[in-house]
Amino acid sequence: MTDWIERAREVAAKLAVDAVERDRRGETPYQEVRLLKDNGLVTLLGPAEHGGGGQTWETAYRVIREIAKADGSIGQLLGYHYLWAWAARLVATDAQVAAVEELYTTGNLFFGGAVNPRDADLTITEDGDSLVYHGHKSFSTGGKVSDLTVLEGVLEGTDDHIFAIVPSQQEGITFHDDWDNIGQRLTESGSVTISGVRVPWESAAGYVDRRFRPLVYNTLNVPAIQLVFANFYLGIAQGALETALAYTREHTRAWPYGGDDKQAASEEWYILEGYGDLQAKLWAAEALVDKAGTAISRVLHAPREELTPEARGEVAVLIAAAKQRAVDTGLEIGTKIFELTGARASASKYGLDRFWRNLRTHSLHDPLPYKRREVGAYALLGEYPTPTWYT
Amino acid sequence: MTDWIERAREVAAKLAVDAVERDRRGETPYQEVRLLKDNGLVTLLGPAEHGGGGQTWETAYRVIREIAKADGSIGQLLGYHYLWAWAARLVATDAQVAAVEELYTTGNLFFGGAVNPRDADLTITEDGDSLVYHGHKSFSTGGKVSDLTVLEGVLEGTDDHIFAIVPSQQEGITFHDDWDNIGQRLTESGSVTISGVRVPWESAAGYVDRRFRPLVYNTLNVPAIQLVFANFYLGIAQGALETALAYTREHTRAWPYGGDDKQAASEEWYILEGYGDLQAKLWAAEALVDKAGTAISRVLHAPREELTPEARGEVAVLIAAAKQRAVDTGLEIGTKIFELTGARASASKYGLDRFWRNLRTHSLHDPLPYKRREVGAYALLGEYPTPTWYT
Amino acid sequence: MTDWIERAREVAAKLAVDAVERDRRGETPYQEVRLLKDNGLVTLLGPAEHGGGGQTWETAYRVIREIAKADGSIGQLLGYHYLWAWAARLVATDAQVAAVEELYTTGNLFFGGAVNPRDADLTITEDGDSLVYHGHKSFSTGGKVSDLTVLEGVLEGTDDHIFAIVPSQQEGITFHDDWDNIGQRLTESGSVTISGVRVPWESAAGYVDRRFRPLVYNTLNVPAIQLVFANFYLGIAQGALETALAYTREHTRAWPYGGDDKQAASEEWYILEGYGDLQAKLWAAEALVDKAGTAISRVLHAPREELTPEARGEVAVLIAAAKQRAVDTGLEIGTKIFELTGARASASKYGLDRFWRNLRTHSLHDPLPYKRREVGAYALLGEYPTPTWYT
Amino acid sequence: MTDWIERAREVAAKLAVDAVERDRRGETPYQEVRLLKDNGLVTLLGPAEHGGGGQTWETAYRVIREIAKADGSIGQLLGYHYLWAWAARLVATDAQVAAVEELYTTGNLFFGGAVNPRDADLTITEDGDSLVYHGHKSFSTGGKVSDLTVLEGVLEGTDDHIFAIVPSQQEGITFHDDWDNIGQRLTESGSVTISGVRVPWESAAGYVDRRFRPLVYNTLNVPAIQLVFANFYLGIAQGALETALAYTREHTRAWPYGGDDKQAASEEWYILEGYGDLQAKLWAAEALVDKAGTAISRVLHAPREELTPEARGEVAVLIAAAKQRAVDTGLEIGTKIFELTGARASASKYGLDRFWRNLRTHSLHDPLPYKRREVGAYALLGEYPTPTWYT
Repeated sequence: MTDWIERAREVAAKLAVDAVERDRRGETPYQEVRLLKDNGLVTLLGPAEHGGGGQTWETAYRVIREIAKADGSIGQLLGYHYLWAWAARLVATDAQVAAVEELYTTGNLFFGGAVNPRDADLTITEDGDSLVYHGHKSFSTGGKVSDLTVLEGVLEGTDDHIFAIVPSQQEGITFHDDWDNIGQRLTESGSVTISGVRVPWESAAGYVDRRFRPLVYNTLNVPAIQLVFANFYLGIAQGALETALAYTREHTRAWPYGGDDKQAASEEWYILEGYGDLQAKLWAAEALVDKAGTAISRVLHAPREELTPEARGEVAVLIAAAKQRAVDTGLEIGTKIFELTGARASASKYGLDRFWRNLRTHSLHDPLPYKRREVGAYALLGEYPTPTWYT
Repeated sequence: MTDWIERAREVAAKLAVDAVERDRRGETPYQEVRLLKDNGLVTLLGPAEHGGGGQTWETAYRVIREIAKADGSIGQLLGYHYLWAWAARLVATDAQVAAVEELYTTGNLFFGGAVNPRDADLTITEDGDSLVYHGHKSFSTGGKVSDLTVLEGVLEGTDDHIFAIVPSQQEGITFHDDWDNIGQRLTESGSVTISGVRVPWESAAGYVDRRFRPLVYNTLNVPAIQLVFANFYLGIAQGALETALAYTREHTRAWPYGGDDKQAASEEWYILEGYGDLQAKLWAAEALVDKAGTAISRVLHAPREELTPEARGEVAVLIAAAKQRAVDTGLEIGTKIFELTGARASASKYGLDRFWRNLRTHSLHDPLPYKRREVGAYALLGEYPTPTWYT
Repeated sequence: MTDWIERAREVAAKLAVDAVERDRRGETPYQEVRLLKDNGLVTLLGPAEHGGGGQTWETAYRVIREIAKADGSIGQLLGYHYLWAWAARLVATDAQVAAVEELYTTGNLFFGGAVNPRDADLTITEDGDSLVYHGHKSFSTGGKVSDLTVLEGVLEGTDDHIFAIVPSQQEGITFHDDWDNIGQRLTESGSVTISGVRVPWESAAGYVDRRFRPLVYNTLNVPAIQLVFANFYLGIAQGALETALAYTREHTRAWPYGGDDKQAASEEWYILEGYGDLQAKLWAAEALVDKAGTAISRVLHAPREELTPEARGEVAVLIAAAKQRAVDTGLEIGTKIFELTGARASASKYGLDRFWRNLRTHSLHDPLPYKRREVGAYALLGEYPTPTWYT
Repeated sequence: MTDWIERAREVAAKLAVDAVERDRRGETPYQEVRLLKDNGLVTLLGPAEHGGGGQTWETAYRVIREIAKADGSIGQLLGYHYLWAWAARLVATDAQVAAVEELYTTGNLFFGGAVNPRDADLTITEDGDSLVYHGHKSFSTGGKVSDLTVLEGVLEGTDDHIFAIVPSQQEGITFHDDWDNIGQRLTESGSVTISGVRVPWESAAGYVDRRFRPLVYNTLNVPAIQLVFANFYLGIAQGALETALAYTREHTRAWPYGGDDKQAASEEWYILEGYGDLQAKLWAAEALVDKAGTAISRVLHAPREELTPEARGEVAVLIAAAKQRAVDTGLEIGTKIFELTGARASASKYGLDRFWRNLRTHSLHDPLPYKRREVGAYALLGEYPTPTWYT
């Protein structure tokens, strides 16, 4: 794991150089995804026999976090990619899994997805041996920078949700480039129109003889992606703290009007105590996120048939808690660092607001109070979260 | 007072229309200052005999707050203007005061200032009956939109600080238009170069026979401007809350994955409780800011000679406390509203991040921990804050 | 008002002498109620013509607060007394009001009450011209130290709630002396059994010809008592802060292991900043509680028929907010003062925990989250709290 | 480890039965220490060859926590015992270590200590081959329930601190039984007088030929005991949360005045969300405390000579952070649980205030702000905490 984290740090160091600038310009991150590919991070979870890293999710989560320290958007893109790349494992047959993993690993391909279920789902019509996807999603992630896209829709006349993986660059897929939000600006999370995208029935993930046999394992999608969130949130928070610490070391002056003869920012009690408080909180959040990472990684890499609802529930609750701590702690850090760096740190060129904006934006994905309620229902009643497709 | 608040609300309503748009464009707010002038807000404190409003600071503070609800930058500009317009009262002779107040009230003139003392001060040289100002300030406020500028410098070879009021549009003053910070973007707070700006000795504020006779009243500048801050902070916080409430009413949907059949955002317990918590905190901050406004207004409008250090100290401590509550409460609101409006409220077009950015930026003017210490030293030791020129 | 506050402070100073000791012993506060009587505080709201203070609620709230600074229990007893003494005004006929006010003012009588509606109500049977009360209440306040008790029950076979004022010392009333809670230990808030307490029909408060004609004014009971709560909460919080400040001044030593040569607790940055933070928060809560006091006092002393549901609603919302701030702030202070006083301040003899215990105990009277929701529903929807008999 | 935690839970279950009652009575916990002994917890760290558990500190910390869930005082006593039992390893020679460990393990002996260095140290005089301790300590822990006491004093005419282990029951040691504080009431932490307690020079821990050769390892005393603190704080917090959850399940009713027809406390959104928030925070604190436990356990059980100042520093900083999170989280839980259990939970018989009292009391041992500063100095400057004897 250490090697991969080290490698992620090197990539992050490159991303950090112009992160503020790129955030402002809002350009499509082709080069940044290229950088991930060139350093083997895109195939980290891919089978070693096809040239992949053969690593576990425990490592993947740490890598996401490292990347997000430098650039929250790229951290998100990588995290979503890992999840989409794992989508086959979540729902597909063994043969399909093998095919998808070979495909993307040998090709070093990057995933995006259009799976947001809060919209009317995509509809699917049958056409002989093909499934044809039609519809519109308000939000997707990855879009133009992806090589493959995970589609999810409902087969007409049924309640069957069918996932399929298709090339992103094709006539039937139009990314509208309309993501313009206050944070995570480089995630290509705009809307997408799907018009007649064809998929052979045999590629319908997990369908055998056109029927799907559900496993508890399928429902790991939500805890797995929620912990992806928690990890890039944590990375953003760490990036915020480290950036602020560096700023304080380099630029912050002692306050000259205090009546005591302070010479350096590091003599300001409130700066030392303030950083100590934030650092301790961040370490606590990190320890919980790591614990959750170890727990779900074990489950994700175990035989799929073995997963029980109880084991899924335990890990889901832990992740719901970890996410809360990452968000609350990160927002506090994103706001408080300004008091520890001082007035001039609010200059746009330092971009110190991007951490708060990034975290604030994505942490709205689903309401945190519901995550608190999930943990509370578990603590009070022993209830596990009901699996849904979204949260 | 009610009439003026009503009038300020009408102005604010106009400012609100394109506040998000203007914040993004970052254009110099000529029109907005025009709007303030046309509605009599610029001369609110000016003598009625010259066409001014003849109002007290208590009203001025409320007006600042109303304007800041719609546009934090314009609220700041107006607040600083009031203080600069009062600078004569703070330090000048009766005759100078009368002249300045007539000048700006009849002319409906807008003040800016270059008085930030954390830089090396401007230097002043004598040239016969003139004083000549030279130097550079990293930050001023008002700049290009001001008609008059308050200068402050130190007379060469002495420790005498001398204030003077000069026309902003003159050869010797160059505003560098380099304010590019994450918030309060329309305040024209960039750097300024002063090259040979001449002022007759007799305009040196408060100097009689080239000597200054200090009064405790002079030192009201800091509490008065700090309460200006607190009021536009509070206005920003109120604007944040009101904007969020309106958004929730219009756009926020109930969360569909909760397992309970909620139909509207207003059925979400966490949304109601969340808003109730923020509203209560805001009301408490407001009540304290109002109390401080009443207190300092009484002092500012009383005969200048009567002010004692004790009375100054009491009001300064109260304002130090009021500022803390405005900042802490406002930052919490600026962050928390997103959880009560939901994911789509992070779209740039709503500009819901501007409240946090505006408050975060200006609240760094001087370190809040030092304000806490001031209040603490008073509570514990009965000590009053030592007057300084800045904080 | 100032005189009364001054007088309350003198009483408080006497109560403070052995407040810790009395809290521990848990003795029935006969002497303390005697002290309130002897200083005219019990008849503060009573008509001047009968020897009462003739003061307004605005003053009453401040007096409650002063007393609670020294002793939260006695503050609560006095506050409840004021409300019970006002119960006649809330619901009774003019003639009844006059009689009750004369009775208690001339007699300098102290009120208790058994009106907790979360229990099965007392039942009332008719017996000719008499009403006969029977039943049991889990909680009353005042009990053995009261001269008069306000009873509330439901007339058998109807939904009519009937209030009546009766002598506390009578055969039909048994106070069980079973209040044993972690705070507010001297409030005589135990259970009471009512067995055949007789009241003439004509004393049924507000009933004319055995029918009650409701006014909006009747429903002021809840906001009025909730602001009584907020005031003694605030008093407890102020008592906590003042006691801690005094302790720090007298006893707290600088920390010798910091590596810097601090000589006194007042050189500890965290102590000064910590007290400043608490003081500012307390002042903000106080300003809001005062604002609410002015508002409801105006309404309570205006003609009863004039009160509209809207005016009642505005004041109720403001009080719901004020209560929140008093509780949250007070609990923070009650906990945080220990960090500013140091390890030896946890000795039982200082009783520094009583503030937290007192506030924690009574602030559970009704759930604060519901108060937050009330304020939130007003902010979001413009709704006023629905009047109930309890909260 | 699991077995020992299970055993600790069984002991805790017994302690929980009358924990409230015992806290109130404040009796010397002879029986409770007996219970620890009978279950092998006292010799958990003792060598297996002498019948000890042969466990690591990682397990010891977890056991302390389990005991503290049921009874914070007994958790503290056990934790201090472990540290005193380890005092030999911290400073003594190999032979001394072997002797002490055999002595206490075979005898199943319980340690106390009188080492608080904020007092004037005990003085030691030489008398031939003996050292004679004299003096007074304001605080010790264990006192009358201990079999052995760790003394620490300064040898007259030198700056040499000398530790020695002596029988607690001897003429020269008088425990004054004067610990009367608001929390941790059963810890026997009162003052002690030492009058002529004799120790052979050869028992002076770590002294060879009357000289002490210091190791970095000696300075592990502070991080090791600070993590003992963090663990019983965490246990107290967990006890609070679990006790409250059980109360809510059994007793708490839905609020009847909400206007919605809630039937059970578990339908109250604020109760579920409130518990979820507390549980998530507690898990985060726990994860960090566990991480710190693993880290220091590794170091404590490694060869003593190998420990570097850097490794000591890393673990000390981590523990300083862990302690902060345990305290802050625990105090929040200790206060907030009342809002989730309701008014009747404040009855003395439930003793729900003991968690806050216990945690509040001991967490004052040394100022938390200094721990924040330590972490801040590390984050900002890379500095490690300077070892001291106390904090």
